Amino acid sequence: MKKGMIKVSVLYPNGEGKTFDMDYYMNSHASLVTDTLGDALVEVSYDKGLAGGAPGSPAPFIAIANLFFNSMEEFGEAFSTGAPILIADIPNFTNIEPVIQINEVLT
Amino acid sequence: MKKGMIKVSVLYPNGEGKTFDMDYYMNSHASLVTDTLGDALVEVSYDKGLAGGAPGSPAPFIAIANLFFNSMEEFGEAFSTGAPILIADIPNFTNIEPVIQINEVLT
Repeated sequence: MKKGMIKVSVLYPNGEGKTFDMDYYMNSHASLVTDTLGDALVEVSYDKGLAGGAPGSPAPFIAIANLFFNSMEEFGEAFSTGAPILIADIPNFTNIEPVIQINEVLT
Repeated sequence: MKKGMIKVSVLYPNGEGKTFDMDYYMNSHASLVTDTLGDALVEVSYDKGLAGGAPGSPAPFIAIANLFFNSMEEFGEAFSTGAPILIADIPNFTNIEPVIQINEVLT
């Protein structure tokens, strides 16, 4: 059960001229995320966008990472030191500026 | 493990003049989702937006629902009959037109 956990989603919006190296993302960046955030990162999942809601429409987001933390405090501590390292790696796989959404898991 | 599953995210973008009744959403709409999609819906989770990535910024999305299906076929069958019922309920809790993202869960 993840109820009550802090879920930080990192969404990469699709768009014209946007590039995204899914191999680098999953094989290199994902490891960097795990190593950088350490024990504060309780769980992580990665989604690949397939489509939008309207028939034949592209996915609004090329990829979404979902990072789970036990509390805002633990997320804040991990990100204050880790975020610069992770952000510096982004140009290695995409020219997209990700959207960050901090959630509380309701259920 | 959800790897390989189809994850359909329904995202409600935040914005000026947007309204969202979280109580109705969680206490009434969520039940309608479960009842309408039936056994095809393997799992569902709901997120409440707390904040954005920049300090003090609002959450890009007020709420996000994540619906898990075993395959695109099972999702398609469940949504072809269920979507009109669910869409008709949306004005009961929000004036937001949700963004729909169909994902493959990579890990």
